[in-house]
Amino acid sequence: MFSEKHKSAGVTYPLGFTAAGVRAGIKKNGNLDVAVIYTEKEAAVAGVFTKNLVAAAPVHVSKIVVGTGSAHAIVANAGCANACTGEQGLRDAEKMTEITAQELGCRSDDVIVASTGVIGVNLPMDKMESGIKDAVKNLSREGSVNAGNAIITTDTYSKAGATEIQIGGKEVRFGVIAKGSGMIQPNMATMLCFITTDAAIEQSLLQEALSEITEVTFNMISVDGDMSTNDMVTVLANGAAENPKITSKNEDYEKFYSALKNICTELSKRIAADGEGATKFLTINVNGAENFGDAKQVAMSVAKSPLVKTAFFGEDPNWGRVICAVGYSGVKILPEKTVVKFGGIPVYTHGVGAKFDDEALRKVMSEKDIVIDIELGLGETSATVWSCDLSYGYVKINGEYTT
Amino acid sequence: MFSEKHKSAGVTYPLGFTAAGVRAGIKKNGNLDVAVIYTEKEAAVAGVFTKNLVAAAPVHVSKIVVGTGSAHAIVANAGCANACTGEQGLRDAEKMTEITAQELGCRSDDVIVASTGVIGVNLPMDKMESGIKDAVKNLSREGSVNAGNAIITTDTYSKAGATEIQIGGKEVRFGVIAKGSGMIQPNMATMLCFITTDAAIEQSLLQEALSEITEVTFNMISVDGDMSTNDMVTVLANGAAENPKITSKNEDYEKFYSALKNICTELSKRIAADGEGATKFLTINVNGAENFGDAKQVAMSVAKSPLVKTAFFGEDPNWGRVICAVGYSGVKILPEKTVVKFGGIPVYTHGVGAKFDDEALRKVMSEKDIVIDIELGLGETSATVWSCDLSYGYVKINGEYTT
Repeated sequence: MFSEKHKSAGVTYPLGFTAAGVRAGIKKNGNLDVAVIYTEKEAAVAGVFTKNLVAAAPVHVSKIVVGTGSAHAIVANAGCANACTGEQGLRDAEKMTEITAQELGCRSDDVIVASTGVIGVNLPMDKMESGIKDAVKNLSREGSVNAGNAIITTDTYSKAGATEIQIGGKEVRFGVIAKGSGMIQPNMATMLCFITTDAAIEQSLLQEALSEITEVTFNMISVDGDMSTNDMVTVLANGAAENPKITSKNEDYEKFYSALKNICTELSKRIAADGEGATKFLTINVNGAENFGDAKQVAMSVAKSPLVKTAFFGEDPNWGRVICAVGYSGVKILPEKTVVKFGGIPVYTHGVGAKFDDEALRKVMSEKDIVIDIELGLGETSATVWSCDLSYGYVKINGEYTT
Repeated sequence: MFSEKHKSAGVTYPLGFTAAGVRAGIKKNGNLDVAVIYTEKEAAVAGVFTKNLVAAAPVHVSKIVVGTGSAHAIVANAGCANACTGEQGLRDAEKMTEITAQELGCRSDDVIVASTGVIGVNLPMDKMESGIKDAVKNLSREGSVNAGNAIITTDTYSKAGATEIQIGGKEVRFGVIAKGSGMIQPNMATMLCFITTDAAIEQSLLQEALSEITEVTFNMISVDGDMSTNDMVTVLANGAAENPKITSKNEDYEKFYSALKNICTELSKRIAADGEGATKFLTINVNGAENFGDAKQVAMSVAKSPLVKTAFFGEDPNWGRVICAVGYSGVKILPEKTVVKFGGIPVYTHGVGAKFDDEALRKVMSEKDIVIDIELGLGETSATVWSCDLSYGYVKINGEYTT
């Protein structure tokens, strides 16, 4: 979806945004680890946060910032999650916003703060302070790539993109950087996603759009309510495009909504495809459900099954594991109405295995990008979940990741 | 718990039971694959079956047998699950009971039938018929070891045991064989457990005891309602011990109940410890919950987390992943009241990481048998879940298991 130019532009593609990523010495490997994103023009802000009851300190602080309705900046670090750090953690997260605000000349409640990395360790605040000051000095219209690299952990690459639409005769731009990789059950790895846009839009509509879109995009690579301690998706909209401000659900809103949804969909797919150790990208479509909740529940049951995931890693068309996961999903399916397809080839139809062309199915299983269709035959509703396989690489990454 | 003598005696330890295990050519590797267990004296029968809506043919047939209240035999095979096999599968499962009944001289609805192995493949009924006939010919008081080996799949060994208690001046014996190994989420691998006893007990009490005990034993290595297509636990009680028949919940019933619970607990722990590729046995105790459902939900959330499982495989005391799984379990925990211990050593107390002796904790993590205690501080109820780690071995077994 995103061109190379758009990817490298990222969060600084919309007018009025600058960014930077620097080395502060928080990541053990010495890579970039502190990012700042800034808009001098005040932006409407919207955010969606983890529902984990053990939410990290920066989540608590950023929720308050979103509550004010506007913001000027985001400060984020990788290498230390600042989660399970108690009062000290809260003070450190607040301090991050204060240092950033002081350097930028805005208020501390204008600064979103995010962290990702190891849980239970306090932030090295001396390094953090130098890092933030350094990042603010380096803010530029070309800083998105460094900012993107500063927020990744076990991701194999930084996810970034940008796009534009026309609203009221004006070009309105969107940019994004994101990270997230612990993907066998993505809920347990931190996902950070920072979206910028120069659209002029009322904050309440921005929040409503983001909340709705998150349900069918980022929450479809995760289990509802099952999120890491640090997950966060935010949008800053600074109005620099000078489009007629979107204040109602008119045609302009629909265009804006559609563009934001496309970005979130694309990012969700990329985060799933770059799951830790992933060798396959799995798209699980459930059709013919009575309602969205049922469709999602069936798709998630399949997506989360380690037996399904290892079968795809082994390129084995083991549809028995898929139908088994459908059967225990908790949704009242009827085996005799259910059809399962791999890459469009029926493998299970109405209670029994289907006769299929072995060679054609082997080809499907050998591909990197595999679609699993599950037709329930019970209603009219669909849901799509994005997932990946389970490989030796996942065990290696997570068995050797030391605290 | 079980002595070597008791293990080898297994299901034939109680008076009046014989067993056999033979090679019928159903397992690709040529190992033992058809088992028969028999009691000439009619036995009261109780059973607990998978709640998976895609239940296998033998499950449907065996439920009817349990419904009659009595049985004489069990016929079981490994290598082919006879699941997702439609009408043909049902006819094949019924045929297994008919062949067995004919050879034994009982009725087909006196024969429990069970299968485990690959889903979606029809049973080779010619091989099955020879196998059953062969097994019946070989029935003996020493046949439990072979029967146990005939029902295992990826298990590294056959789980078996026996014990005895005194009821009304009579020795009452119990024996068991079991299989089950796909353990990362045990719900997706078939667990078969056949318990025999020479106790005299009313069928309705036997069923009530088994149903209750299953909730706190076998269902604690699995997710409630999340079971494989073929899971089954059955008890045959033939009364050969000639104890005063247990017809009410008296002291004798309590003794019987306690012995049955001990057996089921021991087998549950062994099945968890022998999870596919497992290198660690994890006991997860949740204390201080408001009710059993909450306690179990928190323990299962931790037990199922691939990030927790890989951390234990890597011997990394990553308590952050444990508290994260507690936080998203769906139970309303309070971080400031929660305490997490590994091997008795507090690692997380009241919202923050605890100071601990690195050397002592490293020793805990290096052990094969590790206890995780989670204190919620919200009530008086506890639950224990048994689990294992996630290793390269799991991915190898399940990525290379071909259909």
